[in-house]
Amino acid sequence: MKPVIPFVSNADGAERQAWRTALQEVLKDIADVKTFEELTPDECEAAKVAIVANPDPAEVAALKNLIWVQSLWAGVERLVGELPEDGPLIVRLTDPQLADTMAEAVLAWTLYLHRDMPRYAQQQSRKMWKSHQLKLPEERTVGLLGMGNLGIKSAQRLKANGFPVTGWSRNKKSIAGIETSHGPEGLKSLLAQSDIVVVLMPLTAETRGMIGAETFAHFKIGASLINFARGPIIDTPALLSTLDSGHLSHAVLDVFDQEPLPEEHPYWVHDKVTVLPHISAPTITSTAAKIVAGNIEQYLKTGAIPAAVDRTRGY
Amino acid sequence: MKPVIPFVSNADGAERQAWRTALQEVLKDIADVKTFEELTPDECEAAKVAIVANPDPAEVAALKNLIWVQSLWAGVERLVGELPEDGPLIVRLTDPQLADTMAEAVLAWTLYLHRDMPRYAQQQSRKMWKSHQLKLPEERTVGLLGMGNLGIKSAQRLKANGFPVTGWSRNKKSIAGIETSHGPEGLKSLLAQSDIVVVLMPLTAETRGMIGAETFAHFKIGASLINFARGPIIDTPALLSTLDSGHLSHAVLDVFDQEPLPEEHPYWVHDKVTVLPHISAPTITSTAAKIVAGNIEQYLKTGAIPAAVDRTRGY
Repeated sequence: MKPVIPFVSNADGAERQAWRTALQEVLKDIADVKTFEELTPDECEAAKVAIVANPDPAEVAALKNLIWVQSLWAGVERLVGELPEDGPLIVRLTDPQLADTMAEAVLAWTLYLHRDMPRYAQQQSRKMWKSHQLKLPEERTVGLLGMGNLGIKSAQRLKANGFPVTGWSRNKKSIAGIETSHGPEGLKSLLAQSDIVVVLMPLTAETRGMIGAETFAHFKIGASLINFARGPIIDTPALLSTLDSGHLSHAVLDVFDQEPLPEEHPYWVHDKVTVLPHISAPTITSTAAKIVAGNIEQYLKTGAIPAAVDRTRGY
Repeated sequence: MKPVIPFVSNADGAERQAWRTALQEVLKDIADVKTFEELTPDECEAAKVAIVANPDPAEVAALKNLIWVQSLWAGVERLVGELPEDGPLIVRLTDPQLADTMAEAVLAWTLYLHRDMPRYAQQQSRKMWKSHQLKLPEERTVGLLGMGNLGIKSAQRLKANGFPVTGWSRNKKSIAGIETSHGPEGLKSLLAQSDIVVVLMPLTAETRGMIGAETFAHFKIGASLINFARGPIIDTPALLSTLDSGHLSHAVLDVFDQEPLPEEHPYWVHDKVTVLPHISAPTITSTAAKIVAGNIEQYLKTGAIPAAVDRTRGY
């Protein structure tokens, strides 16, 4: 008898089934994957590990003997907030493809700003033919907030394409070939020299609301902002007033306090805001399923659990 | 007394002043840069060399003792047509930065298409929150038409960022690390495998109208097109009908049969066309200013004039 691995997700039916099929395929020799509603009471009782993707916390709680859960996402702050502290260990997805996809997104939207694409789109809508002076990439410093795996890969990709890069993290970090700073003074100096600031930090108690009026005051006049991390890191009213005052020239936002972004939100119609529907670095089904299967297979064979989230840090 | 170098340009006030400031900065130790309207009659009389950027021919003619003019542009066909044959020698800008800037533009708008930016922009205008499956760059082949210096640099840049690249030229060419083809059969095979086709060929008798209905028939269904070369290489009615039939999914056009693109042109309002005002690889103030300053400094010190345009060839 193969063990049953619950897959707990509140994704809509089609997406949940697509994931289940992909997971079942890669796990087929060692386990059966079932969605929560397919589980028998015995299977609920027996489950030591589950795969989760935006799970209903009540469903996770119903699996009383869980030791750990494997998330399909890299970001687990919601899971950390929703599952009890004495609940199962939480293992994030660490997909090496994810960092490459994020680095690509950081480069793509940096070039979008660097090459004035929002302005040319607005001109097209007005049938306006007008060119604007182009800077060299060497003249455009990109500041990265958050120097984890995503930040490092993004920094390397930007550098390879000619942009000077400076990276900031809460604690001191040395990264070969990348200029870094840390702490509150380091942040001020990064902001003072950056033409484009990219947010790649996890959402934690420290980073929540961190980019607010006080922080915006240190941005260069005319700088742009890209948020590919989590919405609540940025204070929305402060961002809006910094854009409206002309201090910031543009914001590319992929993440929001509430997702989907509510229809009445001013970002949708703001001509200095590019709204993206959380697509900077989506989990790619094929590569993620293989990694998750590897973790589960190792656990079933040896009992080894991958490094779990440190709940006091939040990531 | 430093000599006065006239800067003659019909650019609007802000752009003219930006250029003047950049030129004055790099020439500050050896000359004073003045716009035409700032010149005294004596300074007009004394000028042996001027820097020009779309100059009013009458203003150039008013500088009676000019021996040569340094253009800020690489393309001087207009200047050649407007200045009298017995007028000053014309020196074009030859900036090695140009190929890097073009390679950056090719990468930037390839990523624009790869990451679905036109679709997400349309969704924002409708307040629509919807993500679309992302492909890996390995799954997106870029075909380059024209493998001169611009094509080679663009191919290398795309490859370094993960895109499979294939290049075509009229005659057989071997380029280390880049798959190439040539001739009519080579073109068909390139088009059959390319998800994004980038036009980088010069406008010649052979390339005029080359991308028309017959050529579009060989494009992959759903492919996209980028034209950073010259407008007349593409047959406009054929492109419009290929977009409207759904065969092609998007076109990024930087160059047109007539520029500025006329207000009534259907491209302006076509939701599958991105219109750019000829900005893929413009002269960059900082590098151009240095090259121009080098030429002028050499002239002032030694009397040597850089190689001038051959007016019988036109370049």
